[in-house]
Amino acid sequence: MIQHLAVVGATGAVGREFCALLEERRLPARRITLVASARSVGKTLRVAGGTLEVQPLTEATFQSVDFAVFAAGGAVSRQYAPIAVSQGTVVVDNSSAFRMDAEVPLVVPEVNAADLKQHRGLVANPNCSAAILVLVLAPLHRVNPIQRVVVSTYQAASGAGAAAMQELRTQTVEYLSGRPVRPVVFPHPIAFNLFSHDSPVGSDGYNQEETKLVEETRKILHAPELAVAPTCVRVPVLRAHSESATLTFEHPITVELARETLAGAAGLKVVDDAEQRRFPMPVEASGRDAVLVGRIRRDLSQPDGRGLQLFLCGDQLRKGAALNAIQILEALTQPG
Amino acid sequence: MIQHLAVVGATGAVGREFCALLEERRLPARRITLVASARSVGKTLRVAGGTLEVQPLTEATFQSVDFAVFAAGGAVSRQYAPIAVSQGTVVVDNSSAFRMDAEVPLVVPEVNAADLKQHRGLVANPNCSAAILVLVLAPLHRVNPIQRVVVSTYQAASGAGAAAMQELRTQTVEYLSGRPVRPVVFPHPIAFNLFSHDSPVGSDGYNQEETKLVEETRKILHAPELAVAPTCVRVPVLRAHSESATLTFEHPITVELARETLAGAAGLKVVDDAEQRRFPMPVEASGRDAVLVGRIRRDLSQPDGRGLQLFLCGDQLRKGAALNAIQILEALTQPG
Repeated sequence: MIQHLAVVGATGAVGREFCALLEERRLPARRITLVASARSVGKTLRVAGGTLEVQPLTEATFQSVDFAVFAAGGAVSRQYAPIAVSQGTVVVDNSSAFRMDAEVPLVVPEVNAADLKQHRGLVANPNCSAAILVLVLAPLHRVNPIQRVVVSTYQAASGAGAAAMQELRTQTVEYLSGRPVRPVVFPHPIAFNLFSHDSPVGSDGYNQEETKLVEETRKILHAPELAVAPTCVRVPVLRAHSESATLTFEHPITVELARETLAGAAGLKVVDDAEQRRFPMPVEASGRDAVLVGRIRRDLSQPDGRGLQLFLCGDQLRKGAALNAIQILEALTQPG
Repeated sequence: MIQHLAVVGATGAVGREFCALLEERRLPARRITLVASARSVGKTLRVAGGTLEVQPLTEATFQSVDFAVFAAGGAVSRQYAPIAVSQGTVVVDNSSAFRMDAEVPLVVPEVNAADLKQHRGLVANPNCSAAILVLVLAPLHRVNPIQRVVVSTYQAASGAGAAAMQELRTQTVEYLSGRPVRPVVFPHPIAFNLFSHDSPVGSDGYNQEETKLVEETRKILHAPELAVAPTCVRVPVLRAHSESATLTFEHPITVELARETLAGAAGLKVVDDAEQRRFPMPVEASGRDAVLVGRIRRDLSQPDGRGLQLFLCGDQLRKGAALNAIQILEALTQPG
């Protein structure tokens, strides 16, 4: 039972989804405090059956708070999460600030809930693309160790926040009206376009999103040697990410075993009907808890039978962010 | 010099682009006949500085025609291309009907123009995704043989024709107005969505588009053993295809050599500015002849230095179809 829960970044895309899920999943909290940036203070939001006024973020925010979810970006987490932890608050942080810290568990509950036991007041919620990918990789990795993953993403606007989702809508209207398209949130047009993920690019040629996908996948799977070749791309989709993955296993694996394994895994739904051509799609993954996986086929380019290809879609705001954070809270507060 | 050129399927997306390119590239033809299906007969189109009335397709169409371009789908090509060839017409066929026929050259002029010498009246124009991919692979393959390609596509609506492009626009308006989205051309919603390529899926789990991409890439590159792992996906983009490719070479290769090689290759433009985060994008590839290639980086998942990753965009209607057909005609009629 949570005595006092704080939601930091309550008015953002992830924060709003988190509040909706609090109600949907009936996570019991005696008291809830919604926190957001100065320009949202005083707004009211409906959450868990009541209406709450948004509060400002101060050092005093966490005084009686036993659990806090941070979804306000890395800078806010870096500044305030340590303050909260020092006051005894257990923080679930959606930013990338602490994810690769060796002392901070990075958790997808279906995959590595046991890592929660080592927390020292701070648990990191993974990158959205990594969260939905490991949900598919983990059950396969358990039956036959995965050696290499080549993954290309098709990432929704929601990963860049509510303003980015609005920009996709607004730009689309502008484009269809023949008006000039003016990118504000994204560096490039997003309407009827796509582009390499808009995070900074390192000296190795990989952008930060790709580096996160590699490092976080390894950490969550406890597979530091796993080879990952990532390409992260932003597409004009609103809120579900898709990923095309080509896997190499240690031993030969059949499509049948892979499909059975995935069908029996928590958090997944196999959508793989070749005859009806029904496979995972963002519109069907949106607003759903389950990550959809399909197009499970033998990779004919790996003639030793150790290769599989598959395609997955997951709601970026749910399993990619808010749902996973709620599941971490559930695991922390409902042991056993 | 072409005496009499017939354009079959002149009112479709590829046919219209072909007519525009005839003018732009000043391909000399003394006489042009535009042919289309019954419902378009009698319409007039502007082409090569004049206005022409669309004619019906009959067995007599090709009597004085020395060159014909077919862009009206596989069924029309299968029925009428042999008739045209038997009457002495040289046919450039944009459909998939004859592409894998051992006696039919499948040509991207920058890559394998020499194969044109073996034609017996019929030359096949490749699948759009294959055409833009081989343009990037071929120069690299010449300096260091490619052994394996893992490729995920981001394919525009134009690949399914003009009606599909209109469906993307119409559905987008419906979606933004909160009206129900009604797929007609595509089997699934395309507005703010994406889906596994809508071609039939074979018993091996690959759809026809993927199988074409594998087989045609091998044929054009004269590399029957090349391993290709394809995933073809339709995205809500109007007319340029994108592809994420992960390559394995026979020998180690540096990013610098790859970039130099691609920068010096015909038909390509390297767009690879990590600092400004400018990489290939469909909106910048649209309406252009050059295929854009960038994000050229060492694949860290292949520690032996034999791996590269890159991203490319090419106009589906130009290099993916009409431009390549024009270039084939140019090579056939302007030898040397």
